[in-house]
Amino acid sequence: MIKTILFKNRPAGKPSTSNFELITEDDPKPAEGEVLLKSLYISVDPYLRGRMRDQKSYIEPFKLNEPLESNVVAEVVESNNSNFQKGEFVSGMLKWKELQTSKGSGLNKVHKELAPLSAFLGVLGLTGLTAHLGLEKIGHPKEGETLVVSGAAGAVGSIVGQIGKIKGCRVIGIAGTDEKVEHIKQEFGFDVGINYNSTKDMKQAIAEACPGGVDVYFDNVGGEILDAVLQNVNKDARIINCGAISLYNETEVPMGPRPEGILIKNTVLMQGFLVRDHVKDFGSSLQQLGSWIKEGKLKYDETVVEGFDKLPEAFIGLFEGKNTGKMVVKI
Amino acid sequence: MIKTILFKNRPAGKPSTSNFELITEDDPKPAEGEVLLKSLYISVDPYLRGRMRDQKSYIEPFKLNEPLESNVVAEVVESNNSNFQKGEFVSGMLKWKELQTSKGSGLNKVHKELAPLSAFLGVLGLTGLTAHLGLEKIGHPKEGETLVVSGAAGAVGSIVGQIGKIKGCRVIGIAGTDEKVEHIKQEFGFDVGINYNSTKDMKQAIAEACPGGVDVYFDNVGGEILDAVLQNVNKDARIINCGAISLYNETEVPMGPRPEGILIKNTVLMQGFLVRDHVKDFGSSLQQLGSWIKEGKLKYDETVVEGFDKLPEAFIGLFEGKNTGKMVVKI
Repeated sequence: MIKTILFKNRPAGKPSTSNFELITEDDPKPAEGEVLLKSLYISVDPYLRGRMRDQKSYIEPFKLNEPLESNVVAEVVESNNSNFQKGEFVSGMLKWKELQTSKGSGLNKVHKELAPLSAFLGVLGLTGLTAHLGLEKIGHPKEGETLVVSGAAGAVGSIVGQIGKIKGCRVIGIAGTDEKVEHIKQEFGFDVGINYNSTKDMKQAIAEACPGGVDVYFDNVGGEILDAVLQNVNKDARIINCGAISLYNETEVPMGPRPEGILIKNTVLMQGFLVRDHVKDFGSSLQQLGSWIKEGKLKYDETVVEGFDKLPEAFIGLFEGKNTGKMVVKI
Repeated sequence: MIKTILFKNRPAGKPSTSNFELITEDDPKPAEGEVLLKSLYISVDPYLRGRMRDQKSYIEPFKLNEPLESNVVAEVVESNNSNFQKGEFVSGMLKWKELQTSKGSGLNKVHKELAPLSAFLGVLGLTGLTAHLGLEKIGHPKEGETLVVSGAAGAVGSIVGQIGKIKGCRVIGIAGTDEKVEHIKQEFGFDVGINYNSTKDMKQAIAEACPGGVDVYFDNVGGEILDAVLQNVNKDARIINCGAISLYNETEVPMGPRPEGILIKNTVLMQGFLVRDHVKDFGSSLQQLGSWIKEGKLKYDETVVEGFDKLPEAFIGLFEGKNTGKMVVKI
């Protein structure tokens, strides 16, 4: 028997463990052309909250009473598919199951000599790709510019900030505790950190941290921090709308000051970014990220939670700031 | 003695005639190197409301007790400058005066054989340039796409819609009266018009007018119409934030539904546009606009108010929807 986690009901507001159900089911058997995969590391990510909504317009909302899915690193434990050999490691969008079968499409081979297996869910996976491609394709950071990053101690944010430093930017990170602020400065080389939880006036704090104004803002949170950054943007600033974790659990349409006046006055660009639109650039980006890691220019954090049963808890923890860097569950 | 209009005090909310003062002063005399200009047509534009604010960050706010300024077509009636001859016509950012002197910098010669003089304040002036360059540089309209334009019967909007048709788009215009809606369809070839004043649910109306969703939105108004368009945007839509006339007279920070969720979900681009950033493209753009006019593909409306004294009234009328197309004052 193996364990599976089903999506039981749609959360109103912050997700809770009651939205999930742990069940056991028979061991799966791979058919002809299929592989049997054993989950080793399962990724939990804020964007999964979006897939929990029942919006027709949202791409692939999770179905009730079916297993959740996210990025997983797995070992091929049986193979009836000539493209995969027993003992190989793969990553891909897979179900929250201890064991599962796959036809192999959408699976990427993981070269474990390059980095620890869990890194392929983070810095060498969608997290690193999101940070790198989002910053490059929308932000176009130039040497000497000022880059602000929210969720700066998170998986994406910590990589964005380091790439900003590699590009020669002055980098300001916004995070939720003094420990995180200290960490992004000590470990990742951010020039300044702001703890938004202990700061009364974010507009003022950003103004002080960015005496020359903000040129690029990589936004992982949306909401009031975005408002505060907008009050400090320079002419022709670029804002990457990558995430809006501060809004994901809102049950009513969140209201805020209208941005259009500032956008016009400073000819600011705001653009939403989804990494899945840039598959053709994944290869070159992963190569670049790998080089930076090898050169010691790019470090990464992981928060590893142990145990398949802890998946819901780990996911909920994302909304409580419990992770530093990429949150993964080790099975 | 000549007439001049001074900026008397900063409006709170909608401008009124009490913000202006008409005075008379001695005839100006051109010094060596100067020309004497007689104002023939003076442009009134919504963006001037922005310059009436006392914001340090705003570029060149009007100073109290000094003449207002805007784009003017003038005749050279005396010249002590070898670059200009008596009897020539010029356009430029000039003061609200019947007669004034100028050193000549920033003046463009007007070739009156191409179009009536007033057109150089509109379709062959900043208005046409704003429509053309804003749509091209941010909107990138492609054949078969759906373009929505607000302020569609206004100076910029009516040109945007026609360029959209030239580019092969389906074009939907939003305006404030049934007459304007009829006019943009009959005169300018818009496919659909929506009267926002008689429409209860703009989100629904746009959805019906755009069954395939919105690809490009040229926004002259901001506010609730922008909200309604955002509810209907396609993947990778482009929004040109060109104006926000619905907000210019607000005295408090206007609030609205936060856009960041939609921007991310549909990877939408929103970007502020100011025509003055694109001076290097003015020449080629005016050439293109001129050709389209000659080919009969581009028509334009003017609302001409007669009399120097009527300048404040004409300007205030912009916020009451009193113009169809470009509003100019004939002196």
